[in-house]
Amino acid sequence: MTETQWNKLGAYLKETQILGSIQNTLYWDQNTGMPKRGASWRSEQLTYIAKILHKRNSAEEFFNLIQSAKNELSNTEKNSDNQFRIKDKERNINLLTKEFNKEKNLDPKLVESLAKAKSKGYESWQEAKKKSDFNIFLPFFEELVRLRIEEAKQISDQYTPWETLAQPFEPELTLEWLNKMFQPLKETIPSLIREIKHSKKNHLDLSPESQQFLCSKLLDEFGRDKDLVIVDESPHPFSITLGPNDFRITTRIVKGEPLSSFLATAHEWGHSIYEQGLPSQSHQWFAWPLGQATSMGIHESQSLFWENRIVKSKSFSKRFFKKFVSAGCSLNNYLELWKSFNHLEAGLNRVEADELTYGLHILIRTELEIDLIEGGLSAKDIPVEWNKRYEQLLGIKPSNDSEGCLQDVHWSEGAFGYFPSYLLGHLISAQISTQMERDIGLIDDLIENGEYQKIIFWLKNNIHKYGRSVNSMELVKKVTNEELTPIYFINHLKSKINDFT
Amino acid sequence: MTETQWNKLGAYLKETQILGSIQNTLYWDQNTGMPKRGASWRSEQLTYIAKILHKRNSAEEFFNLIQSAKNELSNTEKNSDNQFRIKDKERNINLLTKEFNKEKNLDPKLVESLAKAKSKGYESWQEAKKKSDFNIFLPFFEELVRLRIEEAKQISDQYTPWETLAQPFEPELTLEWLNKMFQPLKETIPSLIREIKHSKKNHLDLSPESQQFLCSKLLDEFGRDKDLVIVDESPHPFSITLGPNDFRITTRIVKGEPLSSFLATAHEWGHSIYEQGLPSQSHQWFAWPLGQATSMGIHESQSLFWENRIVKSKSFSKRFFKKFVSAGCSLNNYLELWKSFNHLEAGLNRVEADELTYGLHILIRTELEIDLIEGGLSAKDIPVEWNKRYEQLLGIKPSNDSEGCLQDVHWSEGAFGYFPSYLLGHLISAQISTQMERDIGLIDDLIENGEYQKIIFWLKNNIHKYGRSVNSMELVKKVTNEELTPIYFINHLKSKINDFT
Repeated sequence: MTETQWNKLGAYLKETQILGSIQNTLYWDQNTGMPKRGASWRSEQLTYIAKILHKRNSAEEFFNLIQSAKNELSNTEKNSDNQFRIKDKERNINLLTKEFNKEKNLDPKLVESLAKAKSKGYESWQEAKKKSDFNIFLPFFEELVRLRIEEAKQISDQYTPWETLAQPFEPELTLEWLNKMFQPLKETIPSLIREIKHSKKNHLDLSPESQQFLCSKLLDEFGRDKDLVIVDESPHPFSITLGPNDFRITTRIVKGEPLSSFLATAHEWGHSIYEQGLPSQSHQWFAWPLGQATSMGIHESQSLFWENRIVKSKSFSKRFFKKFVSAGCSLNNYLELWKSFNHLEAGLNRVEADELTYGLHILIRTELEIDLIEGGLSAKDIPVEWNKRYEQLLGIKPSNDSEGCLQDVHWSEGAFGYFPSYLLGHLISAQISTQMERDIGLIDDLIENGEYQKIIFWLKNNIHKYGRSVNSMELVKKVTNEELTPIYFINHLKSKINDFT
Repeated sequence: MTETQWNKLGAYLKETQILGSIQNTLYWDQNTGMPKRGASWRSEQLTYIAKILHKRNSAEEFFNLIQSAKNELSNTEKNSDNQFRIKDKERNINLLTKEFNKEKNLDPKLVESLAKAKSKGYESWQEAKKKSDFNIFLPFFEELVRLRIEEAKQISDQYTPWETLAQPFEPELTLEWLNKMFQPLKETIPSLIREIKHSKKNHLDLSPESQQFLCSKLLDEFGRDKDLVIVDESPHPFSITLGPNDFRITTRIVKGEPLSSFLATAHEWGHSIYEQGLPSQSHQWFAWPLGQATSMGIHESQSLFWENRIVKSKSFSKRFFKKFVSAGCSLNNYLELWKSFNHLEAGLNRVEADELTYGLHILIRTELEIDLIEGGLSAKDIPVEWNKRYEQLLGIKPSNDSEGCLQDVHWSEGAFGYFPSYLLGHLISAQISTQMERDIGLIDDLIENGEYQKIIFWLKNNIHKYGRSVNSMELVKKVTNEELTPIYFINHLKSKINDFT
């Protein structure tokens, strides 16, 4: 390879990527294998790597490499042969410049204060949740809100503070646009909830071993390559990439929720298959921005697709019914399995929520966040506001903070702006599913024939392979020929309710 | 903590230790979880960490820190209160200086050539072993021998080349001394082998699940703290420390060798319990040389103690007999279990060898190594020499190179000088066991009463807690009041054979 400025920058990025993937390995081990008492040393290791990574990402050397590569690029003659390649390269440079400036604009003192506040926030949240006492968390939460507002101001004047904090998850997102997406849901879902005919939840009897067995069969069904993707258990399911050919997913056994591990496996498989489909022809590419996921909303759309469109479909239950029976479930027919997968009922817990009510959980958090960051809502009023909004939208009220405003980890680490991606994922999944059916036929038929590879091939070629070359909204438009709209998701919910009546 | 030169050096060492423990985490994951196709990126991660580690360990900054701490120390007033502390500090400085000089004396070009030769050696060995063709490995092996002789010459003129290569494993070892230890074994063991009354090997029927169950029960018996020590499976059993409170051991299920996983678990437990007992009052200490194992011979003595002195004892079989029966073994009495653990028979494979013949496997490798490095033996003659010596000492002859001279991985990575530690471990284990019995009673009685904590306490206080404050031979003398001698091991072998007749 010639020693161009481009290659020099690539070598730098690759080293950063090596460190990032080491960080991921430490994180993976922490959640799957590490003995409890290893935690304190692990945190020293992680702090060390984070420090080096921050140094690399804000180093003068890095800035100069980006500049030199940019200059080299602008001197490259454009012709019809290489114009696409150059466009990609330019986008890589732009994304790198943007991120570099972001790191550079931050006051190092703020970075340090934030790191400490996050760690204290997480610690106090754990205790507060255990004791179901928001006041334990409150002072640290107030500090986190204050610091993150300060951070937003240092980073950008193009976006509002909350928008700024949401950019890393959903680039170019604005409040105005988000409102257009979410308002129709806020207006529609509560009335749909009232249409549900309540049925008793079917209790399936599945031992942990049977659940593990079924999860493994599920991945076989989807065509997992065991030399490429491994599975483990962790307290919270996640998917992570440790190298260009090293993918990991976890699941967990939840007592009293026998289908939870199965659905989590499908969900994490969706995340992983997206990362597996990202452009990664070489390690070099893997390290460049364009080799990465374009947004968390797109990421979530991929996981939700496998969880909701595939596993919760009738034809999937038809295919897997016998496996559940032989794993010990007393089921009379596949529709009973399908009903178990699709049990609809408003609950207080986001993570275990069904497709229909899930959106409302997100709406509540998103609105509260925006009010906190830029709407004058005081942190101390969160519990009252939380309970009020749950009662308004879902018709139920938490009996304590632990099952209410303390249930999720995100805010304890100051992660604002993340929640909307979960709901955007539902919208995107619904819209691209419709397009997929136009292109390759009904998803139900594809599942019935076990044509998962056809589905993966379509996803790879229409979504995954683009990496960050386009942003999420451009991608949706590119694939479906229209802007993202909540209509497809609402239609999907309506037809599901219809199916039940 | 005051910012003394000593503390500055400590901070530097701690950072090195963090990197070293990250390297260990990557290694652990590689052997227990990593999907096959992750190998190439993992090797990039490991190369990157190795590069930084080498840089740190040979940096001018490091040398200056050692010098400053040394000067500070020599200006410290010695009084009766702090003389032991100062002695320890001086030893830390001496060990650091020695290692720094070693790194510094090496020509960087040689270091690079060696890294490449090791990787090529390992690769070609794998192929050679698979095809059972020594000639595939030969050219790379010759290069490794040549480079390591060159390395030895660059490092030291105090020791002979082979002695120099053995120093990292057994500090201060000399050929003359080694000969005094091994010669009596060479003279005694072959005649003991002839005394064995051959009996058919008792075949125990244990499914992989039963083996896992028994391994887990074994660790419960020994008092494992699950928050401190975790267990996994890997192709080759090993023990590794990832942090001051993070210990890992692996075992493996070997087809046709139903007791192999159980014995390997005991063996690795012994390694781990040694590392758990090393001085580690603070992270600081963990990073200093004195917080490390003093030699591989001592390390091996600890693993062999748990494998051979504990698990292969009669009283252990008495205690565990019922557990084996309920795991599916058809055994009439505990003596049958004991006989299975102690089946003596000369075989070609070192790893699966019994206590009696194991030493001969080591003698052959050690003598061949010495002849190769400094005795004029040509690499190409290894297969012939190997087979000849096996026939002479063990009375059996490999039918091909794969079960002969290609069986072990060590030479393929240029690791000369390591093998003797395995046998020294047997000698040390026997000698300290005798002392332990003088101090706290018969090991058989302790096991019968389940007093493992008493054993661990003794080991910790007599062996583990010293770390590298004394070298292995000083340690043996300190504990047993005499120099290391092969007599105790020979007596142990004789009494075992006696037990059978």
